[in-house]
Amino acid sequence: MRFGLFGSAQARRGVPDVDSGAGFREFVENNVEAEALGYHSTFIVEHHFTGFGQISATLNLLTWVGARTTTLRLGTAVIVLAWHNPVLLAEQVATLDLLSGGRVDFGIGKGYRYNEFAGFATPMEDADARFDESLEVMRTAWTSDVPWSHRGTYWQFDNVVVEPPTAQKPHPPLWMGAGSPASIRKVAALGFNLLLDQYASIQQIGERIAIFKTEVEARGRVFDPMNVGVTRSINIVTTPADLERAMANRVAGRRRIDRLATRPDGPGSNRAQLSDAEICASALYGTPDEVGRMMQSLRAAGAEYVLLNSAGGRPTLRRFAQELMPAFSDVAPVAADG
Amino acid sequence: MRFGLFGSAQARRGVPDVDSGAGFREFVENNVEAEALGYHSTFIVEHHFTGFGQISATLNLLTWVGARTTTLRLGTAVIVLAWHNPVLLAEQVATLDLLSGGRVDFGIGKGYRYNEFAGFATPMEDADARFDESLEVMRTAWTSDVPWSHRGTYWQFDNVVVEPPTAQKPHPPLWMGAGSPASIRKVAALGFNLLLDQYASIQQIGERIAIFKTEVEARGRVFDPMNVGVTRSINIVTTPADLERAMANRVAGRRRIDRLATRPDGPGSNRAQLSDAEICASALYGTPDEVGRMMQSLRAAGAEYVLLNSAGGRPTLRRFAQELMPAFSDVAPVAADG
Repeated sequence: MRFGLFGSAQARRGVPDVDSGAGFREFVENNVEAEALGYHSTFIVEHHFTGFGQISATLNLLTWVGARTTTLRLGTAVIVLAWHNPVLLAEQVATLDLLSGGRVDFGIGKGYRYNEFAGFATPMEDADARFDESLEVMRTAWTSDVPWSHRGTYWQFDNVVVEPPTAQKPHPPLWMGAGSPASIRKVAALGFNLLLDQYASIQQIGERIAIFKTEVEARGRVFDPMNVGVTRSINIVTTPADLERAMANRVAGRRRIDRLATRPDGPGSNRAQLSDAEICASALYGTPDEVGRMMQSLRAAGAEYVLLNSAGGRPTLRRFAQELMPAFSDVAPVAADG
Repeated sequence: MRFGLFGSAQARRGVPDVDSGAGFREFVENNVEAEALGYHSTFIVEHHFTGFGQISATLNLLTWVGARTTTLRLGTAVIVLAWHNPVLLAEQVATLDLLSGGRVDFGIGKGYRYNEFAGFATPMEDADARFDESLEVMRTAWTSDVPWSHRGTYWQFDNVVVEPPTAQKPHPPLWMGAGSPASIRKVAALGFNLLLDQYASIQQIGERIAIFKTEVEARGRVFDPMNVGVTRSINIVTTPADLERAMANRVAGRRRIDRLATRPDGPGSNRAQLSDAEICASALYGTPDEVGRMMQSLRAAGAEYVLLNSAGGRPTLRRFAQELMPAFSDVAPVAADG
């Protein structure tokens, strides 16, 4: 198996006497240590207008992390294309890819939070069309050495060649989150890698990897389980009281995101309604033995690449790396059996 | 006096067997060494669609440089606001400012290259209006802790608070290029710092600093010569043949930019027409003694903060720092006498 990080730095504003940069610096140091501990990658979210300081300029934070590391893959999970000028974004990704020696994993999405569409004054109904158009522009920007033009619904470019080139060819690997069978098949059809969400049950993870594997193979390609990143929250806790507190925090965190995703006229359309029990069931929370058993179940379901969001901070990342990672890293990847 | 760097990394595309990342890596190492040599800052251009690999994602390259340095000020010279979503740009600048501990100098401009306006399909006639609107949005984004909305000609935002906050308050210093008396007075009126162009003669530099000083003081503020960055090309060469080659390269470089700035129906309107002799006269090219005398003239004209673009690469930056910088750094700044 292979393990990466998944999450966000945090920098709040408007709170007197708070050092807003502390969350960023801690995040950077976490990643520097994670590389030394054997983690393969870091995937950072991107969100806007959250009110609690989730990272908004993801590629900039990732660039800083890149300069402080040497092997860590630098991932986005995910950047919503709708907000970005696709040419500027292609330039930014290529610049980081060049600077880092080809370490970018570019995770992209259509967006699901109502408050972001509202903030950018972008109709949520345009999410699909904006995603498709921006992706087309970005791929052209990365791959075309001769001048091209684009006259689309949302973007226009005339007679341009976009610089710099990417280090990875034809461009960095693209990753996309998906949950429904149709959306998973679409990710496979596009030839992208797959991100699976941290609230899905182990059974759902198995089903989704199986759908992806089937679709990839149906298209004549070889399925590589390392092309599926399974995100999970992790927290190594050793007392029932700590476990209870950790689970309560997890539920509160999910509810906070639910509120940002909610439309004024009802819940976000592409957002699962989860009970507290479901939210807790997907978490890798417990003693090292308990976490190890859950990881074994994930692996039995076909997961070989797990991206960990540590609710237990650096101590949990250290304990996982030292006490559990070796047992899961010393055998070759197996094909999914889900 | 104080000295910084000014320039661009270079990463070409579409040239077989060229390591496109080499120019970026060399640029980063130049900056790391420059900090150790006593340079105060680095100011990086931003340009798009040049065809010869000028840096396009300036804030990303600057972020990488920031992670590799500890005191170097991180400047843009300049970012054209017209191409950027002002909220995303405010987030990117704030993120770098936080990560770097408040080292950002944010240089902004309206744009002068026809090929960039054409590439982004943006009418050049909108340059002023776009600049004004974007600047207003960015300042609100940086300074407002309560939700705000903006319904402008080019941008709309609804009920947002932009995160993260900047480290410098109320926001990083703003720098702006100007040449005509009216535009210099406008920079002073806005309370920004001033960038002076590398092709202006020493006499023009003196006149422009004097105009700025007069306008700053007329507004009841104290003039600080360190708020004027005078850009200069430098090349320490010791033979007539090397000097001739260096001057020829300089003329060719200017002509290349002239072509990018030219409208199909005539020259760029805000672009001076310079003879080869004028292009050469502003360059700090020659032996250390000759460069020292030219620097002394610049200082006599009122320049205290010079941003050097080294056409002679790292060897020139080293020689300047070791042989000339001490003589110019050991006395307190004097007021402009121009």
